[in-house]
Amino acid sequence: MADQFPKGFSGAGVYCGVKENTERLDLSLLVSDRPAVGVGVYTQNLVCAAPVVLDRKRTPCDNARVVVVNSGVANACTGAQGDRDALRMTELAAEAVGCDAEQALVMSTGVIGHHLPMDKIEAGVAAAAAKLGSDDASLDAAARGMMTTDTVPKVRSQTATFGDVECTLTGLAKGAAMIGPNMATMLSVVMTDANVRKEDAQAALSEAVVESFNCISVDGHTSTNDTVLLLCNGAAGGEPLEGKALSAFRATLLEVCEDLAQSIPADGEGATHLITVEVHGCATRDDAIRIGKTVADSPLVKTAIAGADPNWGRIVSAAGYAGVPFDPEHVALLINGMLVYEKGTPVEFDEAAVSESIRSSRDTLLVLLLGEGEASARFWTTDLTAEYVRLNADYRT
Amino acid sequence: MADQFPKGFSGAGVYCGVKENTERLDLSLLVSDRPAVGVGVYTQNLVCAAPVVLDRKRTPCDNARVVVVNSGVANACTGAQGDRDALRMTELAAEAVGCDAEQALVMSTGVIGHHLPMDKIEAGVAAAAAKLGSDDASLDAAARGMMTTDTVPKVRSQTATFGDVECTLTGLAKGAAMIGPNMATMLSVVMTDANVRKEDAQAALSEAVVESFNCISVDGHTSTNDTVLLLCNGAAGGEPLEGKALSAFRATLLEVCEDLAQSIPADGEGATHLITVEVHGCATRDDAIRIGKTVADSPLVKTAIAGADPNWGRIVSAAGYAGVPFDPEHVALLINGMLVYEKGTPVEFDEAAVSESIRSSRDTLLVLLLGEGEASARFWTTDLTAEYVRLNADYRT
Repeated sequence: MADQFPKGFSGAGVYCGVKENTERLDLSLLVSDRPAVGVGVYTQNLVCAAPVVLDRKRTPCDNARVVVVNSGVANACTGAQGDRDALRMTELAAEAVGCDAEQALVMSTGVIGHHLPMDKIEAGVAAAAAKLGSDDASLDAAARGMMTTDTVPKVRSQTATFGDVECTLTGLAKGAAMIGPNMATMLSVVMTDANVRKEDAQAALSEAVVESFNCISVDGHTSTNDTVLLLCNGAAGGEPLEGKALSAFRATLLEVCEDLAQSIPADGEGATHLITVEVHGCATRDDAIRIGKTVADSPLVKTAIAGADPNWGRIVSAAGYAGVPFDPEHVALLINGMLVYEKGTPVEFDEAAVSESIRSSRDTLLVLLLGEGEASARFWTTDLTAEYVRLNADYRT
Repeated sequence: MADQFPKGFSGAGVYCGVKENTERLDLSLLVSDRPAVGVGVYTQNLVCAAPVVLDRKRTPCDNARVVVVNSGVANACTGAQGDRDALRMTELAAEAVGCDAEQALVMSTGVIGHHLPMDKIEAGVAAAAAKLGSDDASLDAAARGMMTTDTVPKVRSQTATFGDVECTLTGLAKGAAMIGPNMATMLSVVMTDANVRKEDAQAALSEAVVESFNCISVDGHTSTNDTVLLLCNGAAGGEPLEGKALSAFRATLLEVCEDLAQSIPADGEGATHLITVEVHGCATRDDAIRIGKTVADSPLVKTAIAGADPNWGRIVSAAGYAGVPFDPEHVALLINGMLVYEKGTPVEFDEAAVSESIRSSRDTLLVLLLGEGEASARFWTTDLTAEYVRLNADYRT
């Protein structure tokens, strides 16, 4: 299906001058025409940005009307002035759409340690409010207004029937597989016209984030600004979702979040591979996540894939230092479906064929089998190339 | 002082054919002419190599006579055959110097998943035994026989008086600041003619490793083979060290280990900076180590230093996700002695001057002040350059 706003939502993206490049958008509004349930999941970094502090206070809520997002400046490490600026952004957004400031949420991404140019933000919010629309172009512009090092806007829509009611979930995200000055901040807003209770929305989002956005690893660095918001305005009608309908909603939300999450490592100028790390056979899901993250974060594994090197030793030994107990004698590893390691020792395999399978595709699949239980996890990351490092080391100097 | 063997120790390094390059040495012997206290500290990776498994069983002991080391093949992930080969290496070494196999320890480093060429090892042990010497050239050769991607041999000696007895501590190490096919394995043997009890030797080594070898971070990858051994043969004479004399020994051992540890990240073909991360003002030393390691492991921090970018945001936010509670409002950061961040916000600083100070020196000093207590830690790492990645991605293909 084509990406589209759910019922009752509109948006806009404009250029207002936060970024130097006048060809890029840097401010977005996302608006619900009626009060929506609003819930969020935020960065766990102790050093968190002013908009994160503010949104944390305001969610979960059931009267959210607008999300204002700027890119270019993250409003992080900006002290009391930063707090005032974040608050002011919500006031401006609320005025523009005709609601109370408390009904507005805010996100920022970009360089940290700089103050927002509030005069430009003020003009930008007014300009965006004047351009609000529910068409495809407005959705695309709203997604572009969030971008920093992203090369493509990231939008995913799904329509499904929950109970008797056809609903749409539409998510926007920003974030790229690049070590960036923006700390590789990941922002996402998922809008839906489904009728979902506040507590159910929070539970659904928290669960979905654990299995999607928390399962991507670009550089192992948790941003000061990472935020995922979910707005449910009920415009599709019907009673609040329950039982099977609610379960179906949760499943669809997870799919949208997975698609958006995967689009982040997939978008990297310097990266040449999207690596999926699947870990199966763990005692607990936490164990599987820990092993998956350790493998996905390993620069040794990432450089090996960049070089099309089927270096199972780097992968198996990364699992070994994840801090999860397992019997190394039971470990097996497949690279792109080919068994290369089993029962604690390498097997005879066609190294040239595995290498060629890595080289010839942008997608690489690593499957680790632990043999300790039934739990599994999936992680996405990129390879680590010389170009990737060059792009980042050279960013400011 | 010149590097030298402690009393009663000799060594040798030879080429026996484990490596393809005939100009490099690949097998070393280190011999004590009398039984020595032997203690070890080993990798915490669950996937550990056969020689680690064997040495773990044999230490601590008070009758060690010989350490045999090969480079080129790590004897890791080699199953039962690997265990037999490690055992056989100790038998060969013991025969060559005239002791029981149980008095021999073994280390291997190199490619993992390959079996040792035991016929070459056998000839190599015999050749090394025939060349044993206590002169500088033998010490240098023994250090070279352990090298893999190292560009220089690493030897550090110190002589000091403990009680009334003048003693020498001499350490050898291998390991380089490079993401290598050898998993960046770190091996070290410290020999001393001091008279130290087994329990005291183990405590001293364990303590020294925590503050030295465990405080270097090359790529965050814990090897399958990491091993540090300490041999104390008492040849300097005197009673077993106690009290102040023992404390002085511990301090000297720590110095030797620190020097050796620091030489590892300092030795990198692809790296252009040796970065020292000092963390002060933590509630506990564990907290300080955790923050130091998180900053030192961050590819964002490492690429920033490569680009001479005084990007305090990357450093402060890495501290923020270390999993250690602290008040971000109390954090300060100095780069090469210049204050760039204080009380949770950046200060005005001469960005060009800080950048130039990074660019013009191989050493970069990052000092983080947390304001939570009295504990501190120091970490050493390297920057992350495009050349560094290229060297590794291209290794096998």
